[in-house]
Amino acid sequence: VRNSKTRLSDFALRLSGAWKDLALPSHDGTVIVAVSGGADSTALLLGLEELIRSGKLAVKLVVAHLNHCIRLGRSDEDAQWVAELGDQLGIEVIVGREPVKEWALKTLDNLEQAGRSLRYRFLAEVAEGRAASFVLTGHTMDDQAETVLLRLLRGSGLEGLSGMHPVRPLESGRGILLARPLLKWARRLETQEYCRHRRIDFRVDETNADHRFARARVRSELVPLIQSFNPRAVEALSRMATLLRGDSAALTAQAVELLGRARDNPDNHSTSDPPSLSVCVLQAALPAIRRRALRLWLAQCRGDLRRLERVHILAVEGLLTGLRGGRVAQLPGGEVVTRRRGVLRFYASDSLKGVEKGRTEA
Amino acid sequence: VRNSKTRLSDFALRLSGAWKDLALPSHDGTVIVAVSGGADSTALLLGLEELIRSGKLAVKLVVAHLNHCIRLGRSDEDAQWVAELGDQLGIEVIVGREPVKEWALKTLDNLEQAGRSLRYRFLAEVAEGRAASFVLTGHTMDDQAETVLLRLLRGSGLEGLSGMHPVRPLESGRGILLARPLLKWARRLETQEYCRHRRIDFRVDETNADHRFARARVRSELVPLIQSFNPRAVEALSRMATLLRGDSAALTAQAVELLGRARDNPDNHSTSDPPSLSVCVLQAALPAIRRRALRLWLAQCRGDLRRLERVHILAVEGLLTGLRGGRVAQLPGGEVVTRRRGVLRFYASDSLKGVEKGRTEA
Repeated sequence: VRNSKTRLSDFALRLSGAWKDLALPSHDGTVIVAVSGGADSTALLLGLEELIRSGKLAVKLVVAHLNHCIRLGRSDEDAQWVAELGDQLGIEVIVGREPVKEWALKTLDNLEQAGRSLRYRFLAEVAEGRAASFVLTGHTMDDQAETVLLRLLRGSGLEGLSGMHPVRPLESGRGILLARPLLKWARRLETQEYCRHRRIDFRVDETNADHRFARARVRSELVPLIQSFNPRAVEALSRMATLLRGDSAALTAQAVELLGRARDNPDNHSTSDPPSLSVCVLQAALPAIRRRALRLWLAQCRGDLRRLERVHILAVEGLLTGLRGGRVAQLPGGEVVTRRRGVLRFYASDSLKGVEKGRTEA
Repeated sequence: VRNSKTRLSDFALRLSGAWKDLALPSHDGTVIVAVSGGADSTALLLGLEELIRSGKLAVKLVVAHLNHCIRLGRSDEDAQWVAELGDQLGIEVIVGREPVKEWALKTLDNLEQAGRSLRYRFLAEVAEGRAASFVLTGHTMDDQAETVLLRLLRGSGLEGLSGMHPVRPLESGRGILLARPLLKWARRLETQEYCRHRRIDFRVDETNADHRFARARVRSELVPLIQSFNPRAVEALSRMATLLRGDSAALTAQAVELLGRARDNPDNHSTSDPPSLSVCVLQAALPAIRRRALRLWLAQCRGDLRRLERVHILAVEGLLTGLRGGRVAQLPGGEVVTRRRGVLRFYASDSLKGVEKGRTEA
């Protein structure tokens, strides 16, 4: 059915604008669309399908759906529904199965975290299998507001309050980008309206009506309350997150620059040893920049930031105060950072003997 | 009554710690304490009195109370109560009177804003009259959380979310600092408990129980709800504000540095003309830094930031895109910024003729 002559829907028009703003590919190649069957991801898929049908977009869509096996029967029905939608639209659907509950028990993650990890791993696999560079999700402005509020409730700093990024690397996928074309403009209600306009009866996720998850309570209690203060509070939070992402990028750029200047052995860039840092250079920097630089440095040295909390960054920063060295900061994985002869040095837990030896020598 | 031998209360001990952290003067000189009669400011006064009595602090206290004349009878009773508390403690009390409602009608401010302007003006006058360098207010961690939430609801950026500063210049006072020694540690409940412990029956501000003000609704509805998510949400928001103030300071420092580099006429620092800025230098900067630099520049050029909104900063920033000049951005006071020959230039509204002339010449 080709009806490219008919006027584009408002939803598809705005999606097309966001597509350009995010510099997503307008022709050639395959993009993976993650579809749960809820209104948001279904509207994303339908909107893209409308753009392709009208000749505005020339990419190949592949739908990916992960069956979480959480809600007996319901999960299978969701998967079945997405498969049928794909049939109806003439779009290939790949369905995966992962028992999220078992994974959560094994990793001690909560159900939401476990679901997310497994989902992103699945999406990366599908993208790699199809040589696709982009995976798309249907996150809306409402999801962004909820994310920001949840992080606010936990006392997050700038990076947390910056919310979700419209485009970011997919952690588990090599070189694959995760893009959220609805994030900066679409309200959840608009995705529902667009599905109705397309006469597609989207699935309702019952966990949304359930207060087990903090996010569901943010959605059902906190967001309505803040909208009673400012009817456009969701838009305001989304705009705030965008501003803060810019601020965060500027601070990170400064931290990277500081880290470059603080390298104790600048000629030694090629060695595989983690660089050591000049105490003087770090002392002269502003705390907000210095802490970010130390965080980046520790991520480099350790390979990741697991279990590294603010208190550890502050402990390492504490080594910089005063004139005297010879002190040690402990990190959660058993690693240590020492200050000696004007230099901060990182020791992995398996190189600790060296530190002990060094300490008696100092 | 001297009982310096008795142990200091917990409240006074923590106040003493905050006093040192903020580098407030520990001896000589007069500090002005703004006391409304509510638990927060009363506890601040009592805590300072305890520290002085125990020999931990050697400053002279002067209490300042502004009668807002808002609530018939009640306002006079509050003023009377504060005067009697001063008598009881042997501390001088200066009471001012300002009809806030009339001022609000005249300035078109809301009652809360009008009350704040008049209060700070009064405090500056009292401080100047006593040659005091510090005015203290009893703002608590709860006030900080409410401020941050209110700004969040309005979609504020980093600076707004940074909340109140523990020490900042008092706008209307020349060289006088406003300090908030309770801001980073005291919960409102603790100030009430300390007043009870001191057997002082603080005044209850009835506007707090009244939903006319958004702040009162934040206090009675939003804060309890967010505490149901995280019982330590108020502390988390306060910590967040502290972190963001550091980030904000780092970005401002960068913006000041950029502004210095962008000055088109660096040798011309002494002229009273507002500096013009190099388009190239600004183009190379990160947006988050550039916008802050433009904001600082416009504040310099105009004398203040009145009626200047984000949209105006973005209009000036818009002049930087592309290679061509000859364009103009309009500011709310009738001023304009032009881009011509690689330079941004500011024209006050009374110098507009020159711009028009220049435009035809270009």
